[in-house]
Amino acid sequence: MREVTAYNWVPDFAQGFVKDLRVRWALEEAGLTYTERLIDHEQKLQPEHMARQPFAQVPVYKDDGVEMFESAAIVLHIAQGSDALMPKDAAARARVTSWCFAALNSIEPYVMNVTGTQLFHADAPWAEGYLASARGMLDMRLNQLSGWLKGQDYLEAGRFTAADLLMASVLRELERDGTLGHFPELEAYCQQCLSRPAFRRALEAQLAVFAKAEVPAGV
Amino acid sequence: MREVTAYNWVPDFAQGFVKDLRVRWALEEAGLTYTERLIDHEQKLQPEHMARQPFAQVPVYKDDGVEMFESAAIVLHIAQGSDALMPKDAAARARVTSWCFAALNSIEPYVMNVTGTQLFHADAPWAEGYLASARGMLDMRLNQLSGWLKGQDYLEAGRFTAADLLMASVLRELERDGTLGHFPELEAYCQQCLSRPAFRRALEAQLAVFAKAEVPAGV
Repeated sequence: MREVTAYNWVPDFAQGFVKDLRVRWALEEAGLTYTERLIDHEQKLQPEHMARQPFAQVPVYKDDGVEMFESAAIVLHIAQGSDALMPKDAAARARVTSWCFAALNSIEPYVMNVTGTQLFHADAPWAEGYLASARGMLDMRLNQLSGWLKGQDYLEAGRFTAADLLMASVLRELERDGTLGHFPELEAYCQQCLSRPAFRRALEAQLAVFAKAEVPAGV
Repeated sequence: MREVTAYNWVPDFAQGFVKDLRVRWALEEAGLTYTERLIDHEQKLQPEHMARQPFAQVPVYKDDGVEMFESAAIVLHIAQGSDALMPKDAAARARVTSWCFAALNSIEPYVMNVTGTQLFHADAPWAEGYLASARGMLDMRLNQLSGWLKGQDYLEAGRFTAADLLMASVLRELERDGTLGHFPELEAYCQQCLSRPAFRRALEAQLAVFAKAEVPAGV
């Protein structure tokens, strides 16, 4: 039994980008089936959900052994049990873990600062000045990442791993405004990851939920 | 053989806050000795270092089995081999991993947005407006974390773990400007973690390097 908690509906801009997608993708790569537990945006704030996800978000993941939150922790957990997402060699596994944290802490915060401002604060009087600064930081990190990837198809171990799954999930946020197009090596890397059948299946599964959803009253 | 790469000098504001501290702390908790490899701020930009740390930062960690970067990945690696930082039970270990990622992805980015602006952009025309927004996001996350910790001393498993080590390392950044004082439960939690002898030894070890350092020319 594997269960992924996800939203039953999100606004258009978030469809295809909610973080249960990462978990669905990892499960698809690993060839594991799962059931969905769908909640709405009132339920996410209830004590019952916050006991499972303290920041009132999704995903939550449950299998016969564990109940976890934080998409990257869940992906790493699935990867530790699947050759599809992790090499066997201990040193290579440690490198993959380093890159999982790098995706989430050395790249994603800089991505979120730009995309979050564009999405939620575009008209704020501070947005233009702040965005120029945030873009400078993001470009630095993307240049460093691009430098690392030069001449190799994947982050580590010469193969697709959980780290690439997480890094591509972070980078694809930058396809929306064209940022990734300024980093051709990163764009090619990201596209290569996203072209995997397991990603397509995961994306379709998330979008299928929203396609069936009624838009909540008041939206 | 365990080796931690750290800086031979940093400016005052960063002394005691460079991220090798987390690794030193984990090693102290685990009762493991290590040697230091010290680099300066020119060396961090050289290809030799960026092959070990792609974002031109510290720490890098090496032991007989692995070479890793990203402080949290290293802490988790040390924890997986030490009862001092992880419970034995698989379900509890998964929860600790969730909280390691939560510290680094659900809390630290919001902390960095506030402290980084205060440190590096205080006079920017956008700083005041942006900080008001960033503080709002941070307060929300700190309230959620405080809610989780209500009635318990540690994040998971009723005991100090690698997750507490990382969370306290993140939260102590907020002692500087008094933010943590507005969250008495978080302040008490953080102080309890920082009062551990292993933390004091780790902090002293980082500061001892800087105490011996010559301030670089031009600073």
